[in-house]
Amino acid sequence: MKRMFAFCVLAVMVMAGALVSCNCGAPDHSTSEVVTPIDNIFERKSVRSFEDKAISRDTLELLVKAGMAAPSAMNRQPWQFFVSTDRVKMDTLCNRLPYAKMLKESAATVVVLGNPEVSKLWMIDCSACTQNILLAAESLGLGAVWTAAYPYDERVNAIKEVYAIPDPWQPLALIPVGYPKGEHKPKDKWDPAKVHYEVW
Amino acid sequence: MKRMFAFCVLAVMVMAGALVSCNCGAPDHSTSEVVTPIDNIFERKSVRSFEDKAISRDTLELLVKAGMAAPSAMNRQPWQFFVSTDRVKMDTLCNRLPYAKMLKESAATVVVLGNPEVSKLWMIDCSACTQNILLAAESLGLGAVWTAAYPYDERVNAIKEVYAIPDPWQPLALIPVGYPKGEHKPKDKWDPAKVHYEVW
Repeated sequence: MKRMFAFCVLAVMVMAGALVSCNCGAPDHSTSEVVTPIDNIFERKSVRSFEDKAISRDTLELLVKAGMAAPSAMNRQPWQFFVSTDRVKMDTLCNRLPYAKMLKESAATVVVLGNPEVSKLWMIDCSACTQNILLAAESLGLGAVWTAAYPYDERVNAIKEVYAIPDPWQPLALIPVGYPKGEHKPKDKWDPAKVHYEVW
Repeated sequence: MKRMFAFCVLAVMVMAGALVSCNCGAPDHSTSEVVTPIDNIFERKSVRSFEDKAISRDTLELLVKAGMAAPSAMNRQPWQFFVSTDRVKMDTLCNRLPYAKMLKESAATVVVLGNPEVSKLWMIDCSACTQNILLAAESLGLGAVWTAAYPYDERVNAIKEVYAIPDPWQPLALIPVGYPKGEHKPKDKWDPAKVHYEVW
């Protein structure tokens, strides 16, 4: 009986140790808040109001890295990126661009630029870059919005002048980014009538 | 001593039950394989070889739903989608399109179409749709590749003829999709020289 008792005590100690080490029952924050790539696509929204909070250089670089992971026609990668946190220049562009009033509050801008001499499909490739950046921003808890530059000459010229961007680079999109202020919900744009299976 | 022994046996049974129910040590496939949206962006690759395996209608619909979650200029949503699993038509397009030989093996095609009468920025909006579809395919374990239609008249006409797509709809991209055959790795396109901070 003494030996059985000693065995039981040992078993209890071993199992208690196993239970403590596996942390059963405790919420696992490292995985419980993971958003799948598909959900992130549906959660992405245009954010136009931002907290007064800076974005780290590493985070801005990650946005651009995501942009540069886009596909391009014939793998020409006809893109470059301009990143700025300059408050005065954002205010100047806020006044010169018609649909970019959110620059008044944004922490940074990412400009996606294409080179028409490298690929005549630059605006298509740069659009894929821009979408990657918007999705990356969403997944990092940032807000962002696509404001169109090309094909509007006055917007293209304003951005090139303020940021001193040389020819032949053409800004496709200027993306104000920041930490979202207030609640922003994605639009539900699903319309099954816009999908044709086998026959139009 | 008897009471202590009984307590130990009970403790062993309770702890054993807890260990079994929490399944400590077993790999948790429901979370361990979760890919973050950022990683999914970097993992996306062009897949041109496919297994002989059909894609379910629900999965094809999810791809199109992801496409339709893209942003669009002035929220005009100038897009529609054509989805086909027709083997004969894929073979026909394989012969008529110059860079779409992967249609010989693909399980389906998703064609992203824009209406120039709804928005003059349709090709930009449809590019964002296309990128969403490619990212959704990656995250669902599918392979896909962007083959350009617009602005090449002969490709646009071939797709419109084979799938009987009416005017004014313009195919921007035809995306062959399927379950990947063999190993496919993403290109590392990161080039820090293509990013300009504050000054070009």
